[in-house]
Amino acid sequence: MSRNLIKPRTLKGFRDHLPDRMMAREHLIDIARHVYRSFGFSPIDTPALEYSEILLGKGGDETDKQLFRFTDQGNRDVAMRFDLTIPFARFAAQNLQEIGTPFKRYHIGTVWRAEKPQKGRYREFMQCDFDTIGTTSNAADIETLFVIHDLMERVGFSDFRVQVNNRMVLNGLLEKLDLQDKAVGVLRGLDKLQKIGRDNVIAELVEKVGTTNEQAERVLEVVGAEGTTDEVLSRLESLLQGSEQGLTGVARLRELFAVCRIAGLEESRVKLDISIARGLDYYTGTIYETFLDDLPGIGSVCSGGRYDNLAELFTTQSLPGVGASLGLDRLLAAMEELGMVESTSTPAAVLVTVLDADHVGDYLRIARVLRAEGIATEVFPDPRALKKQMKYASRRGFDVAVIAGGDEFATGTWQVKNLSAGEQASVEESQLVEHIRGLLAD
Amino acid sequence: MSRNLIKPRTLKGFRDHLPDRMMAREHLIDIARHVYRSFGFSPIDTPALEYSEILLGKGGDETDKQLFRFTDQGNRDVAMRFDLTIPFARFAAQNLQEIGTPFKRYHIGTVWRAEKPQKGRYREFMQCDFDTIGTTSNAADIETLFVIHDLMERVGFSDFRVQVNNRMVLNGLLEKLDLQDKAVGVLRGLDKLQKIGRDNVIAELVEKVGTTNEQAERVLEVVGAEGTTDEVLSRLESLLQGSEQGLTGVARLRELFAVCRIAGLEESRVKLDISIARGLDYYTGTIYETFLDDLPGIGSVCSGGRYDNLAELFTTQSLPGVGASLGLDRLLAAMEELGMVESTSTPAAVLVTVLDADHVGDYLRIARVLRAEGIATEVFPDPRALKKQMKYASRRGFDVAVIAGGDEFATGTWQVKNLSAGEQASVEESQLVEHIRGLLAD
Repeated sequence: MSRNLIKPRTLKGFRDHLPDRMMAREHLIDIARHVYRSFGFSPIDTPALEYSEILLGKGGDETDKQLFRFTDQGNRDVAMRFDLTIPFARFAAQNLQEIGTPFKRYHIGTVWRAEKPQKGRYREFMQCDFDTIGTTSNAADIETLFVIHDLMERVGFSDFRVQVNNRMVLNGLLEKLDLQDKAVGVLRGLDKLQKIGRDNVIAELVEKVGTTNEQAERVLEVVGAEGTTDEVLSRLESLLQGSEQGLTGVARLRELFAVCRIAGLEESRVKLDISIARGLDYYTGTIYETFLDDLPGIGSVCSGGRYDNLAELFTTQSLPGVGASLGLDRLLAAMEELGMVESTSTPAAVLVTVLDADHVGDYLRIARVLRAEGIATEVFPDPRALKKQMKYASRRGFDVAVIAGGDEFATGTWQVKNLSAGEQASVEESQLVEHIRGLLAD
Repeated sequence: MSRNLIKPRTLKGFRDHLPDRMMAREHLIDIARHVYRSFGFSPIDTPALEYSEILLGKGGDETDKQLFRFTDQGNRDVAMRFDLTIPFARFAAQNLQEIGTPFKRYHIGTVWRAEKPQKGRYREFMQCDFDTIGTTSNAADIETLFVIHDLMERVGFSDFRVQVNNRMVLNGLLEKLDLQDKAVGVLRGLDKLQKIGRDNVIAELVEKVGTTNEQAERVLEVVGAEGTTDEVLSRLESLLQGSEQGLTGVARLRELFAVCRIAGLEESRVKLDISIARGLDYYTGTIYETFLDDLPGIGSVCSGGRYDNLAELFTTQSLPGVGASLGLDRLLAAMEELGMVESTSTPAAVLVTVLDADHVGDYLRIARVLRAEGIATEVFPDPRALKKQMKYASRRGFDVAVIAGGDEFATGTWQVKNLSAGEQASVEESQLVEHIRGLLAD
């Protein structure tokens, strides 16, 4: 029978996730959930589709163009969410009565952007956000830092830096230098410091933003100040005298570093960096960026900050908050590059091979016995040649194979093969669980 | 400043998930993942958006009308997935070289259908599918049953029934009664047996499907046969003499029930039901439906079956398989109705209240100490009135509150309040972890 086949293909910028990557992703999500939950953040979810008016104009023209937007069956103008922040703002305004404040939530979900696909960039990706809203307390800012710290540690990184700053310090500085009206340009320029260097930033501030040379030099002098955290904060304090918000920013940073010491965080992992601005974001207080010492080039893997009002477009109730977002796919790519991801495509440790179709009940029964003891066990479905089944076992990455034919069934034993060591032993059924536990513990 | 607020609202048929439902959902997903993995199923994911040609015409006219379908920025005709089966078929055909067979996967994902919203039905919902492809082995059919069984047991149900049948038995019966050409109508009629009763089904078969009265009576006589599983199977065997596929169906069912006995499954939980047909599906062998004894009215919560060829629209390679789908939202609704879902909106057990803003470092430090011992702990962010913080604690469902003010900091102690019992004790810091562990273990 001849038929026209449909060519199986995914859309440009989209991709399938095969078991090896999915297992690494599920593992990372599990860690993130565990850490968020350990701080009392609870999960929420929002729809993939929203009224377009909810999403439009929130991320700038570029984002609007990247929206997957259409008219639905009910003639509604709808679009797929492009981040989890706007849906959270809508969610908070809509459910405020029920959720109450303070409210701590995490949200792990897929978002869609019709970006130009390029290496490592996809039109569908996952975000992992957490936020505390309904409080201006610095305790929440400090805990946000703790969450980022614990996340990175739990994932398995030891050499990472969370770089912290406070927008109020930058704003105070702009105030003192009479640059408030050029704030956006100056902050945007500062964000390029690491990329293009000091001289080029000064040139940009003077030529594009319109500061004087002296103003630009002054800004760079302050944000580039060297010394211990305490020294830098003290110098900022004298410099910002007279700027209330500047001094508030310094005081909040000072408390943050003091509490880090009290709580016993490693000093190398939390660094003051007056130059980070996250200029394009809506942050108004503490800001965070996280870098891996072994892979600084991939940029920040977890960023966030404090904002004055989450949902001002949807409600008159003020909802100040603080939070951050874990760049899940970026972190996964980094872990792959650093060899931190195990290459296995099976979640089970043991494969029960099948030699004798008449004994299918015994193969399935023994798998059940192992599973009941917490040992994930797969049964090969067909009585194919043992060689073929062993090839399957090694390709998938099983640790142990359990084998039985006529002799074993006659004597009540099982052959157990340690697939990494290549050794094989004959084991009585009553000893099987213990024997396999020993192999898996090695 | 007056602004035009955007009304925060979700689309018709869509909903937000607040922490209480999300925690129950995450718990259920965890169990499903754990069970799937324990059998060696590995996770995959596919894009939410597919070329429309991949999805169109696969679920019938009704499904096509319910597609969220649009033209994207690149002028591609695209649509959101309406189930996980078609994307899996496309995935298998596209990635066959890499995944190899046999291939066991689970897929937990959101799907979208523009159905008429009604009670308990939404346009966005989650599916949990698992399948074994690349084998015709009955061992895979039996393990599919085991997965369903273990899923239900792990979720916490003890009174459930997995009803099993085999389409080959029904097909053999139709063959024997010369009804092959009326198969779809007869199977569709049979599926209504529980709902409309024997007499109405016979009327439908005669009037709508065009069987003779005798044929209809005969069909109902066979599918309604009473007795033990062995008795019914033996009777079917004599009845189906001469129909090869009918006898194969009986033999596969016989082996399935024999292995259930060998593996020690409770007999009440697996039942032969010759009347289930899943007439509208593409199944060709074993079929499964799962009912809760306490809530039969909600229908099957986990259904599936064996099929001859998963991906025939996308590849010439034959991919026989077997699998089932857990109705996650339906099961959640059932668990809520049966009082199996804890009403709590915090994943943390302990709330550290904050009385003295000068000691924020100590509050955050002690929370860190508890967390390091595996006790999820939230810190209230602001030094509000204790009464207010305790109200928050009870509304969210914390088990324990930790309290400290001047006296406690002077003596190195913490007040620990058991929120369910209402008792409070003064505890030395060195005893705190142990004391709270004791309270949480109760």
